[in-house]
Amino acid sequence: MKFASLKGGRDGQLAVISQDNQRFITVPEIAPTLQEALDNWNTVEPQLQEVYARLNSDSSLGTAVNVEELHSPLPRSYEWIDGSAYINHIVLVRKARNAEPPSTLKTDPLVYQGGSGTFLAPTQDIPLIDSNWGLDFESELCVILDDIPAGTTGKDIDKYIRLICICNDVTLRNLIPPELKKGFGFFTSKPSTAFSPFAVTPDELGDSWIDGRVHLNMKTILNGEVFGNVEAGPEMHFSFRDIIGHICKTRGFTAGTIVGSGTVSNEDVSRGSSCLSEKRMLEKINTGEFITSYLQDGDHVQIEMFDKNGASIFGQINQKVVQV
Amino acid sequence: MKFASLKGGRDGQLAVISQDNQRFITVPEIAPTLQEALDNWNTVEPQLQEVYARLNSDSSLGTAVNVEELHSPLPRSYEWIDGSAYINHIVLVRKARNAEPPSTLKTDPLVYQGGSGTFLAPTQDIPLIDSNWGLDFESELCVILDDIPAGTTGKDIDKYIRLICICNDVTLRNLIPPELKKGFGFFTSKPSTAFSPFAVTPDELGDSWIDGRVHLNMKTILNGEVFGNVEAGPEMHFSFRDIIGHICKTRGFTAGTIVGSGTVSNEDVSRGSSCLSEKRMLEKINTGEFITSYLQDGDHVQIEMFDKNGASIFGQINQKVVQV
Repeated sequence: MKFASLKGGRDGQLAVISQDNQRFITVPEIAPTLQEALDNWNTVEPQLQEVYARLNSDSSLGTAVNVEELHSPLPRSYEWIDGSAYINHIVLVRKARNAEPPSTLKTDPLVYQGGSGTFLAPTQDIPLIDSNWGLDFESELCVILDDIPAGTTGKDIDKYIRLICICNDVTLRNLIPPELKKGFGFFTSKPSTAFSPFAVTPDELGDSWIDGRVHLNMKTILNGEVFGNVEAGPEMHFSFRDIIGHICKTRGFTAGTIVGSGTVSNEDVSRGSSCLSEKRMLEKINTGEFITSYLQDGDHVQIEMFDKNGASIFGQINQKVVQV
Repeated sequence: MKFASLKGGRDGQLAVISQDNQRFITVPEIAPTLQEALDNWNTVEPQLQEVYARLNSDSSLGTAVNVEELHSPLPRSYEWIDGSAYINHIVLVRKARNAEPPSTLKTDPLVYQGGSGTFLAPTQDIPLIDSNWGLDFESELCVILDDIPAGTTGKDIDKYIRLICICNDVTLRNLIPPELKKGFGFFTSKPSTAFSPFAVTPDELGDSWIDGRVHLNMKTILNGEVFGNVEAGPEMHFSFRDIIGHICKTRGFTAGTIVGSGTVSNEDVSRGSSCLSEKRMLEKINTGEFITSYLQDGDHVQIEMFDKNGASIFGQINQKVVQV
């Protein structure tokens, strides 16, 4: 199944989206919002499946999707927890800020607790408050959980993964070093995140979803040019199973909790990058200087993931940077 | 006004509490949950005020409060952001883990993003999963915000503070050093937090609420003995104005966001402490050894704040530690 949230109200209005992303049906009689659907998943899932099957089998049904009318699938969520599962990204961005990777780089997943109260819509402007803060995008995969108890590990985790989507984890690079130096992790360096128009059940990914990894490419376009076309599967050192097993060590999570992969990153530089910081670090290594600047007023970022047949799975994150 | 949430459903049922904490009225026709009241504050506030006035003026109205039937005022919230505003606490706990206070100790508030999806009820057992993790309590003040835009600072912040309560920010001390060493802040070291039965509007504190500080004592009782009776006002180096101004630097927050003060702490050791870690560090300084152990199966923690007339403002956090 594919879902979106029409703008309106604090939590949007749940829409079931056709598999080709073209049409939608709202289902207020089943669940007014995606959060309510997740809160009552066992009850509503069969009814949602029925609507989805009907929508896909009859192309005269539904209303045309206008992505501008969509908020992020969850306009706000109870938790947004972001991992950093791609070793190549960790190594490069730490090098960029003259920090060492942690000694547990390959054995203990890195995660941070993100802000989850005010997400950006998929086509909402990214506010540029101060260009000295080093505004950057990060193209990432995410999963949305059902209620999951403390102590859940391994394959058991799969049954708690309800939906998959992608996000732009907006980051203020130049606020990170002083903030991390304080010892309490990111805060002001991570402003509001934007998510893809559509969140989909794992079965929509078919055999590209294997053991907690998505074996497809994360495509990022900056100002009309391909900036990265990065394999999300093989170099995801910690799978979603690993990340979620880690966070469940000491507590449980409520339905609708979103967990991110961290910036998708490959060692093969010909694939490009999923954030500016990596590109800048490669420039520094190769030329001695940072060449690419961080995001400026008017810049345009598009993030999307296509299936093996070239169809967009989650729709496109499509954001302009606007000085405020 | 005073509010609580009766257990039942994911977000509880909003109850208006009488000023003497003895009786309640549910108000489903005004707002079924506290989150919905906060989401629509301007609309519902006058109606809630009317119910509160009626409840206080007629002692035959309402149902007797049974604290066991109450969840935390917000059983889950969109954000839980905890500061560390008491310098004495920072200095002692960093000493305890052989870490230096940050160089910006007195100029830049410390905050971390906490998990907000699965709070404990005020009288719910604190689960002891592994006694080697160093289970500790932390008695703290909290405020609950209305929608607040990015960039809000100073006195302007006061009008966005809707409610005040207290919490037990449960902490796993021995998981902190390896976690902070990874650089991304707390995660597994901060399991679910418990809040007081009642959350109250700032006017309930009268002239004890001054410029973003609460000038009353935080009382903590451990196994029936007073463990701390600590002044919350004068040594709160960063006021709630300072903490909230800091977090608003790069984004806004949704109604229902909870912001904590950090462990209430005084330099005067005769006042005791609001967490075990401080007491242990003082023992280490004075005797060369840690004497007090972290929380064990069966331990009993009670946290409460009284007004100048000795009346409990927020009700009592009253939790037993139970090995799971």
